[in-house]
Amino acid sequence: MLSNLFIEDIVRKTLMEDLGRGFDITGNLLIPGDALGRAVLRARQPGVLCGLIPALTAFSLTDPDFSFEVEAQDGDIIQPGDTIAAIEGPARALLTAERTALNFLIHLSGIATLTMAFVDEVEGTGARITCTRKTLPGLRSIQKYAVLTGGGSNHRYGLDDAILIKDNHIALAGSITDVLDRARSGAGHTVKIEIEVDTLPQLEEVLKSGKADIVMLDNFTLDDLKTAVSMAKGRIVTEASGGVNLSTVRGIAETGVDYISAGALTHSAAALDIGLDVEI
Amino acid sequence: MLSNLFIEDIVRKTLMEDLGRGFDITGNLLIPGDALGRAVLRARQPGVLCGLIPALTAFSLTDPDFSFEVEAQDGDIIQPGDTIAAIEGPARALLTAERTALNFLIHLSGIATLTMAFVDEVEGTGARITCTRKTLPGLRSIQKYAVLTGGGSNHRYGLDDAILIKDNHIALAGSITDVLDRARSGAGHTVKIEIEVDTLPQLEEVLKSGKADIVMLDNFTLDDLKTAVSMAKGRIVTEASGGVNLSTVRGIAETGVDYISAGALTHSAAALDIGLDVEI
Amino acid sequence: MLSNLFIEDIVRKTLMEDLGRGFDITGNLLIPGDALGRAVLRARQPGVLCGLIPALTAFSLTDPDFSFEVEAQDGDIIQPGDTIAAIEGPARALLTAERTALNFLIHLSGIATLTMAFVDEVEGTGARITCTRKTLPGLRSIQKYAVLTGGGSNHRYGLDDAILIKDNHIALAGSITDVLDRARSGAGHTVKIEIEVDTLPQLEEVLKSGKADIVMLDNFTLDDLKTAVSMAKGRIVTEASGGVNLSTVRGIAETGVDYISAGALTHSAAALDIGLDVEI
Amino acid sequence: MLSNLFIEDIVRKTLMEDLGRGFDITGNLLIPGDALGRAVLRARQPGVLCGLIPALTAFSLTDPDFSFEVEAQDGDIIQPGDTIAAIEGPARALLTAERTALNFLIHLSGIATLTMAFVDEVEGTGARITCTRKTLPGLRSIQKYAVLTGGGSNHRYGLDDAILIKDNHIALAGSITDVLDRARSGAGHTVKIEIEVDTLPQLEEVLKSGKADIVMLDNFTLDDLKTAVSMAKGRIVTEASGGVNLSTVRGIAETGVDYISAGALTHSAAALDIGLDVEI
Amino acid sequence: MLSNLFIEDIVRKTLMEDLGRGFDITGNLLIPGDALGRAVLRARQPGVLCGLIPALTAFSLTDPDFSFEVEAQDGDIIQPGDTIAAIEGPARALLTAERTALNFLIHLSGIATLTMAFVDEVEGTGARITCTRKTLPGLRSIQKYAVLTGGGSNHRYGLDDAILIKDNHIALAGSITDVLDRARSGAGHTVKIEIEVDTLPQLEEVLKSGKADIVMLDNFTLDDLKTAVSMAKGRIVTEASGGVNLSTVRGIAETGVDYISAGALTHSAAALDIGLDVEI
Amino acid sequence: MLSNLFIEDIVRKTLMEDLGRGFDITGNLLIPGDALGRAVLRARQPGVLCGLIPALTAFSLTDPDFSFEVEAQDGDIIQPGDTIAAIEGPARALLTAERTALNFLIHLSGIATLTMAFVDEVEGTGARITCTRKTLPGLRSIQKYAVLTGGGSNHRYGLDDAILIKDNHIALAGSITDVLDRARSGAGHTVKIEIEVDTLPQLEEVLKSGKADIVMLDNFTLDDLKTAVSMAKGRIVTEASGGVNLSTVRGIAETGVDYISAGALTHSAAALDIGLDVEI
Repeated sequence: MLSNLFIEDIVRKTLMEDLGRGFDITGNLLIPGDALGRAVLRARQPGVLCGLIPALTAFSLTDPDFSFEVEAQDGDIIQPGDTIAAIEGPARALLTAERTALNFLIHLSGIATLTMAFVDEVEGTGARITCTRKTLPGLRSIQKYAVLTGGGSNHRYGLDDAILIKDNHIALAGSITDVLDRARSGAGHTVKIEIEVDTLPQLEEVLKSGKADIVMLDNFTLDDLKTAVSMAKGRIVTEASGGVNLSTVRGIAETGVDYISAGALTHSAAALDIGLDVEI
Repeated sequence: MLSNLFIEDIVRKTLMEDLGRGFDITGNLLIPGDALGRAVLRARQPGVLCGLIPALTAFSLTDPDFSFEVEAQDGDIIQPGDTIAAIEGPARALLTAERTALNFLIHLSGIATLTMAFVDEVEGTGARITCTRKTLPGLRSIQKYAVLTGGGSNHRYGLDDAILIKDNHIALAGSITDVLDRARSGAGHTVKIEIEVDTLPQLEEVLKSGKADIVMLDNFTLDDLKTAVSMAKGRIVTEASGGVNLSTVRGIAETGVDYISAGALTHSAAALDIGLDVEI
Repeated sequence: MLSNLFIEDIVRKTLMEDLGRGFDITGNLLIPGDALGRAVLRARQPGVLCGLIPALTAFSLTDPDFSFEVEAQDGDIIQPGDTIAAIEGPARALLTAERTALNFLIHLSGIATLTMAFVDEVEGTGARITCTRKTLPGLRSIQKYAVLTGGGSNHRYGLDDAILIKDNHIALAGSITDVLDRARSGAGHTVKIEIEVDTLPQLEEVLKSGKADIVMLDNFTLDDLKTAVSMAKGRIVTEASGGVNLSTVRGIAETGVDYISAGALTHSAAALDIGLDVEI
Repeated sequence: MLSNLFIEDIVRKTLMEDLGRGFDITGNLLIPGDALGRAVLRARQPGVLCGLIPALTAFSLTDPDFSFEVEAQDGDIIQPGDTIAAIEGPARALLTAERTALNFLIHLSGIATLTMAFVDEVEGTGARITCTRKTLPGLRSIQKYAVLTGGGSNHRYGLDDAILIKDNHIALAGSITDVLDRARSGAGHTVKIEIEVDTLPQLEEVLKSGKADIVMLDNFTLDDLKTAVSMAKGRIVTEASGGVNLSTVRGIAETGVDYISAGALTHSAAALDIGLDVEI
Repeated sequence: MLSNLFIEDIVRKTLMEDLGRGFDITGNLLIPGDALGRAVLRARQPGVLCGLIPALTAFSLTDPDFSFEVEAQDGDIIQPGDTIAAIEGPARALLTAERTALNFLIHLSGIATLTMAFVDEVEGTGARITCTRKTLPGLRSIQKYAVLTGGGSNHRYGLDDAILIKDNHIALAGSITDVLDRARSGAGHTVKIEIEVDTLPQLEEVLKSGKADIVMLDNFTLDDLKTAVSMAKGRIVTEASGGVNLSTVRGIAETGVDYISAGALTHSAAALDIGLDVEI
Repeated sequence: MLSNLFIEDIVRKTLMEDLGRGFDITGNLLIPGDALGRAVLRARQPGVLCGLIPALTAFSLTDPDFSFEVEAQDGDIIQPGDTIAAIEGPARALLTAERTALNFLIHLSGIATLTMAFVDEVEGTGARITCTRKTLPGLRSIQKYAVLTGGGSNHRYGLDDAILIKDNHIALAGSITDVLDRARSGAGHTVKIEIEVDTLPQLEEVLKSGKADIVMLDNFTLDDLKTAVSMAKGRIVTEASGGVNLSTVRGIAETGVDYISAGALTHSAAALDIGLDVEI
């Protein structure tokens, strides 16, 4: 769902990163310019597919003469051995683009797969899994797309599209009530306001102010989370953060929070093994 | 050891990614323009520090008026609670740059830490741990730097700086002897040639040709690796690849191979937890 | 409040646009390289100052040896003859950067001044004046900053930071209820949802759904606006749009709407006359 | 008449400005990926059409699958209700590109329309209307193209393509005769020299020197303009500047000057109302 | 006389070209990070110095801690052994930037030196030596600057800053008179018109039209050039082109033409030998 | 053999350099938008063709509606009058792109031709001609490609892809043995190590160390070169540098060195005359 303009830009830069001074020395010396090839993208691990468009774009930007038979879509569950897509075209370009294509695919599918593991873990609780700004340099948009693909929800995209008031902001402005007043009167009407709290009395002050849209309950115990949820219900959206992992997330979800945010989705997802089997 | 020109470029782009349309809406509304702040980068997990320069650059590019007291260097082992650096300057810029600084630091330290785990695992065997081209889009140079920082060695940087002949290249050019002939006569004298083999007879052909500098022994059994090493010793550099993880790497190293390459170093390293404690 | 990184980038590009192949042919031939100069930015028309930072940045990027005495700030009301800032430095660079500096200043001050005219017009009604996405190519962030400077409020920054459902979106998805259901379940929790309606029954359906944060009342008559406001009060934020100009805006504001959006602020603001008096 | 390379570059950047992190959140959630749409660009105000190519480029860069039926060309006089072009293609891309397309069209048509108003005003006098460097950041080339489209003539494009000696340059080099000597001997043979004068004696000195191609008569009274024209006739091209608006331009033109330059054409043109009627 | 903005941009890109993935592998391994060094730029061949600013910029962009003692300026005649500048700073950065600095210096000094050879050759004739658009990709501005430095004059900078009508343009528009009519009525008043002619009758037609500023006499014999000059004198600027080299240029100049253009200045200048003697 | 991505990028930038503010003023005024043209790229001097792909890309980027009949390939020997390729398409774009296309072609063919002159000179000796990092700013990759096309071999591409230890590096690290130790233990296994020596005893130390792959024999006499070659034979690759030109290269080659490097190939190659004959 990212714009083609955006995807072509990042894939082009990534191809250039691999090409360095602009050429594939091995392919140039060994692969005849007119040789054709066919290859199959194939899953080697179970998981959620993500990144097919950038992967195919890596081939078509390297040479416009590729054709594709696509057999799976982003968001599909894939099993080892499953064919994702078949790729036909110039053999030299096929080998030149292979690594870039796979690097997008294994990273994004890794994120989508990890996200779905969190989502599955909280099934039935009503809690939504969401990401953070703990993303890798330059990869925020595609990583957040992978979180969506895995069934997660997206938190704000950066410093400019939503207000998130943290403890340090509060420390500089006097009180929760003050910062919320200033944020609400300064924010545009299309901007939501979230505020982080560490204690139940802070939550109480947020609720009393009535000027926040979302409250982030940071590093709360499960008991405090439950209390917080009962205080907040119907008055503000709740988001739990801190200490979220696959072992803890179910317990957190069962407290009734609306959202659970986890930095690990984007900063610590392992790659999903996907390969390209070349049939030259 | 990356050039400042390179680091400033990638950090600037990453800051802009977080700033989006160009501003920190929360900081603008809540932090007085003349407030000063002090913060400390602090380890929260044991590991290998990496990425301090890009992290500090994130602050100084946001505002030139920062000063730093640096207490640890890239490559240092850090323990939970260790102070890495103290940062003083404009409070608004401090909060604006915080996430970008940490995103570099936790990712690169994660890679360096994982690399050192592999390096420690093979201690005393003489084998070197090396990375691959399985890097994340746009991050190859900084990821490879993190591998060095963790005690690893760097494989080629891309398609243009060394020749790596894979099975698919061979399939198109007739025989190992042929491809090596063509590669050697076409390659510049500053370029090394590596060739991937899957079997001992292939290794035999490579050794007979005498035209490769390095042989990649892909997915060999430990027994075959041992045989390969004894065949290759003194004639060619050996690199084992495939199925390399923290459980298997010691066994592989004990076969006597010179290098062991692992994609996981760069595509699957979890972040190392490092935080910024703001003392405003 | 735009980041220095952002401002330096746009000012640098604008200087390069004026320099073309990279030089000021007149200055090079006529102004001695070591001549110094002093100049004063001076208002020639009453209005709201905006754009001082990019204007001064134009000088300092052209030559680092400038010093400034700043006597007015963005947002200040300026009168003909008022000194805005004095600029001292290399005479050649002073003349090279002059036009770029003024082009930022007269355009942004023009927008801020027009915005304040709208804001003054609705004084006491409680209505807020807001901008739109009808901005000039490449200038959205600085134009929206000028709207803020003039006392206005900012609407969404683009296609990605808030949902705005227009009649065409509805036409494709079946009903207001349907599109709001889909938008709410798909949107992240930090994203607000606005929907455009053309009639009171549509507003009724929006209110019944309860899933929109803001309703845009497009081209409503004043009577219908009043009815809409009474229906919406306390349930949803209201925004009037269409046919908004300095003659009509007071009447619209008096209907009680929360926001009034006007494309003219950014697509049709005349420049405010500000000059640079050089005292070489 | 701008190169496609140039137009694609600026339109791509403008689309990315609107897309922000790379996606149209509303379209993604509500418009089916395979829905097709048809829309008509339609005039809502009388004026001169300008910017059709960048407008259509906004659609085709967003998705290559658009087709266009073009019914008017840049430079055509359009009346409210006139169809400019019909656009058919993917509905989601249609709505994504709509605002960018219109932002080019309404701004450039606004400039062309204002230019034609000036041109019409001076009809029959022989005077040509020309623009200045008082353009908006990043928009100089397209704004100057719009001036041409409206029947105006272009002044120099920047600091590097013609010499324009202003009072400040003269103040630093001693005398009109001196600066013209230095400019003529230093300028390439393809470069024209223009000099600004404020008084008739200065004009006399310029004429005596014989080294300028054009003289800018800045803020002259109508009487002085007439005198200047009779002095200059056949010896130098004359350009009147200062205090030029739709009320004054006829009087200025009737003095017989060759060119009249007006910054308002590019810094203060109001948008021309043009809409996109979607027939999905 | 190129803007610092322009020079820093091209030098930065050239350093990055040499750094590739961002590091100097040799310097990193061998030069201590805190070692200081001193080096002297020294002429090894007689010629005209050009490019000192980009050369020094290469060092200061690599590391801000350099200091320079400059002993010669662009345009100075240098002799083998002459010191151009002394450079002191970090030893590692000194060696990293060395090649980039020298590559600018030897190329630009080569062009300036060749230009001066042409200029010297025509001394006393009144003819000016000028360049063409036959420049190397990406280097037009700095190459044209080197021509100026060597005592030459600059022709137009590109397709947009002057009109040059060639035979092919004429072939498509009917007649010299026609194309000149169309060019003159379409061109802005700051734009000069040059037209290429191959024969004396064509020149006659150009003169009769009276609408060209410059005539390019292409591949004329010396006799025809003389005739052309006597026809053109006082009516139009003359420029001889074709077959211009160091052996022919004097004869051409003695025909009395105003300008002689030579592509060789920028497409075939040999480098001037300049070295960096490091005194670490 | 450079990637299309790389070629399109450099050609696009070079076209934009020529277009400046984005248009071809002459073509716009004189060539009808719908006129078609045909032209032939034709050799005017004997040499080696190089740069055909970027040349044709200049046309197709200017307008997609060109077709080409290619009659020669990069590396072919061309004679005056030979047709290289015929080009058909829009006449205006043909003239707009002409100069950019030729600028690539004449420069790269000039380098290829000069390289072949060196290669021919050493025929039968077994020595290979190789280039250096003495390339022109921004042109390294295409210049090195031209060296290959002329039959030469490529030296390292920059500071990051091979180690080249020069006298200055040695001066800072103590001894040849030390620097080679440090380089070998720090270098990745895909990186070759070359070291420059000025004397035979230094060569002796290099050979004894056994850790360099290549030795650069800098400014050796022919006698010393012969001695060096006999010492080095079978133990290390030898490269002669310094004082290499068409008069000296045969003698150097006959000493038996493996490689001879010449900066002149890329910093001092004269353009090869190739023209575009337009048949409109």
